[in-house]
Amino acid sequence: MIENVRELLKAHEGLKHEVYLDNENSSVVPSEVIDAMLPYYNERAYGNPTLTHKPGWEAFEAIMESAQEIAAFLRCGTLEEVNFTPGETEANNLALMGTTLSMKDKGKRIIISEIEPISVLNVTDMLQKNGFTITKIPVDSEGFIDLERLGDAVNNETILVSLSAVNHEIGTIEPIKEALEIAKDKNPAVIFHTDASDAFTRIPLNMRELNVDLATISSYKILGPRGIGALYTKEGVKVERILEGQIGTQRLWPGVENTPAIVGFVKASELAFNQFEGNVKHMQTIRDKLIDGIAGSVPEIRLNGPKDTERAPDNVNISFRKCEGESLTIELSLKGIYVSSGSACSRRLLQPSHVLVAIGRGFEEAHGSILMKVTRYHTEEDLDYVLRIIPEAVKRIRGITGSTGVA
Amino acid sequence: MIENVRELLKAHEGLKHEVYLDNENSSVVPSEVIDAMLPYYNERAYGNPTLTHKPGWEAFEAIMESAQEIAAFLRCGTLEEVNFTPGETEANNLALMGTTLSMKDKGKRIIISEIEPISVLNVTDMLQKNGFTITKIPVDSEGFIDLERLGDAVNNETILVSLSAVNHEIGTIEPIKEALEIAKDKNPAVIFHTDASDAFTRIPLNMRELNVDLATISSYKILGPRGIGALYTKEGVKVERILEGQIGTQRLWPGVENTPAIVGFVKASELAFNQFEGNVKHMQTIRDKLIDGIAGSVPEIRLNGPKDTERAPDNVNISFRKCEGESLTIELSLKGIYVSSGSACSRRLLQPSHVLVAIGRGFEEAHGSILMKVTRYHTEEDLDYVLRIIPEAVKRIRGITGSTGVA
Repeated sequence: MIENVRELLKAHEGLKHEVYLDNENSSVVPSEVIDAMLPYYNERAYGNPTLTHKPGWEAFEAIMESAQEIAAFLRCGTLEEVNFTPGETEANNLALMGTTLSMKDKGKRIIISEIEPISVLNVTDMLQKNGFTITKIPVDSEGFIDLERLGDAVNNETILVSLSAVNHEIGTIEPIKEALEIAKDKNPAVIFHTDASDAFTRIPLNMRELNVDLATISSYKILGPRGIGALYTKEGVKVERILEGQIGTQRLWPGVENTPAIVGFVKASELAFNQFEGNVKHMQTIRDKLIDGIAGSVPEIRLNGPKDTERAPDNVNISFRKCEGESLTIELSLKGIYVSSGSACSRRLLQPSHVLVAIGRGFEEAHGSILMKVTRYHTEEDLDYVLRIIPEAVKRIRGITGSTGVA
Repeated sequence: MIENVRELLKAHEGLKHEVYLDNENSSVVPSEVIDAMLPYYNERAYGNPTLTHKPGWEAFEAIMESAQEIAAFLRCGTLEEVNFTPGETEANNLALMGTTLSMKDKGKRIIISEIEPISVLNVTDMLQKNGFTITKIPVDSEGFIDLERLGDAVNNETILVSLSAVNHEIGTIEPIKEALEIAKDKNPAVIFHTDASDAFTRIPLNMRELNVDLATISSYKILGPRGIGALYTKEGVKVERILEGQIGTQRLWPGVENTPAIVGFVKASELAFNQFEGNVKHMQTIRDKLIDGIAGSVPEIRLNGPKDTERAPDNVNISFRKCEGESLTIELSLKGIYVSSGSACSRRLLQPSHVLVAIGRGFEEAHGSILMKVTRYHTEEDLDYVLRIIPEAVKRIRGITGSTGVA
């Protein structure tokens, strides 16, 4: 396999224009973030933050200040509510497993939606094997959760509801506040978790106002370094550790704190919240020009997810009929445009994305989908290039497959 | 607390000479390692390694090459045996919990030693609460495991033996090969895990020859970046995942691979193995001059752990009678010398290190211990400075406590 990959890489030599749009699955870290991290590797605060010496105290100060900044960005109460983890996968595991451990005597029912990210789906699958009952709430054709069905599903046995604030694949901004009120109205003891990885820095988030118990955020999803994320835990909400080891400043995750990554995560947050409204407006503009440009130049396409202010500002997800998605990602890559096909979760098994299936897309549309996430760094020039290349690439793939009515 | 820390930091202004010796609890990452990582943040291979586009394929290639290099350094068979995790704590959790999950029908008995690191101790404590029986094998006054007791302890119900290759606190190089043979002789089905975090790059390690089933290694413990470690799993050995989520190139740990950290881990390994014997010799020289220098200038001290080739080349652990360890770390910090007191594990609870208790040290000697780990970067100049400052600092602390016979 490594030989094939090297051959493919050779075919990419000499690219003049490159546009990275796969910010769902990893991201390009801006140099300002790297510059913020660098001193923490070997100039200052390189100690373990629980140790009684200068580099340890510096690390303690850096981590406390970082947690305080994240707490301020989340509009939550105190830095103790911010628990750093090695990533959003770990934060979701901690939220779901840690809650079931702490609530195991209260009930065995967990509610999620049909379009949650793979980490939530796979953890709940595992919990189901261990005796929990998982209810998956359906969504409408734009991905909005069915609040009535949610209300019907919550009962006295329900211990946990986990719903993403913004869908990771089709950008639906979910009515989390209403969902929480409905759930708590039926059972005030229920723990409400939201994976806010795709909401943080894209939509205003106020933990106090939303009143969620737990929320996951991720560094790489906001152009920070990989290897770091956090679980917000509202004061008083009990979550048990799921791994054991040396407990330092982070009571919910053992092991030595990754100070440079924490500092990078905070810097990435600062950059996003610095001129938050301008950044959001810029992403919305690029997003809509991308959607409209493709719709105007490529026949037989369909936007997946809602539009305008109901859609995350960075999300573009389009199904191309009669065009196999993975082939399209390769074709685009050879021109320097990097996107993903369907959901990252589905790409290995070549199964259609569970999100697209849940909103009612058929096999062909689910397989022919392309996911792009724009950032504040994308330019009009990037946009022009992408809008010139995509129609040619789709035409070529449709021609190769021989199944097109337009080539 | 943050205010106190800031006051303490102010007291450190104007330091001319600094010597970091707390490489047990975190480390200073050399610039060559940083330089190796930097391009992977935003120049190349920044994609998700399972995606079908150029930055994804580049990441796939980088991660496969990294795993291959680690496999070569471990003298194991294939890169598939190297599973990256977010750190050694996660690797130890995976080894212990993942094995008990896969072996749960075979038995309920687990064997460790009395001097294992906190992550192993705390995971086994948790397993004990869940119905497993944990046997802790005692050690002698130098920390060598009692092989006879080990042989007596293994029976048909034993599913797992976990013994560190080198003790993290007192540097004892354990007879792992003999321990494994004794354990497998009593029960060939037993899974043998070793935490090799303090052995990797310090002593020759050959996984094929040792024939261990599982081994933990850590990046920060070899001067690589934090946020990455690995669990070696011998081909055919079954370990179940303990977290769930998106599975990429690493079948035992879900989530997006941390390519820059993986590359940094490999670079740190390369630097250590480049002139391995010279590096080891250098550390041994500094170690012994430090031990002998302190012994020659400070009364009432005792070396913890064995000497010469039975001791890890980087480990210095000395008990100062009538001298409280934490006070000494602060006194030394004010002079720019950074060490830890006792074990990192014990520093919060102010309990004596479990390792020092296990080798028979009394309360006073356990509390008055200092742990230092030298690296290939420490110089004769560093040594001179440390050997000048330590006697003064000990004298001062002994004077303050008023309980000394030497001040």
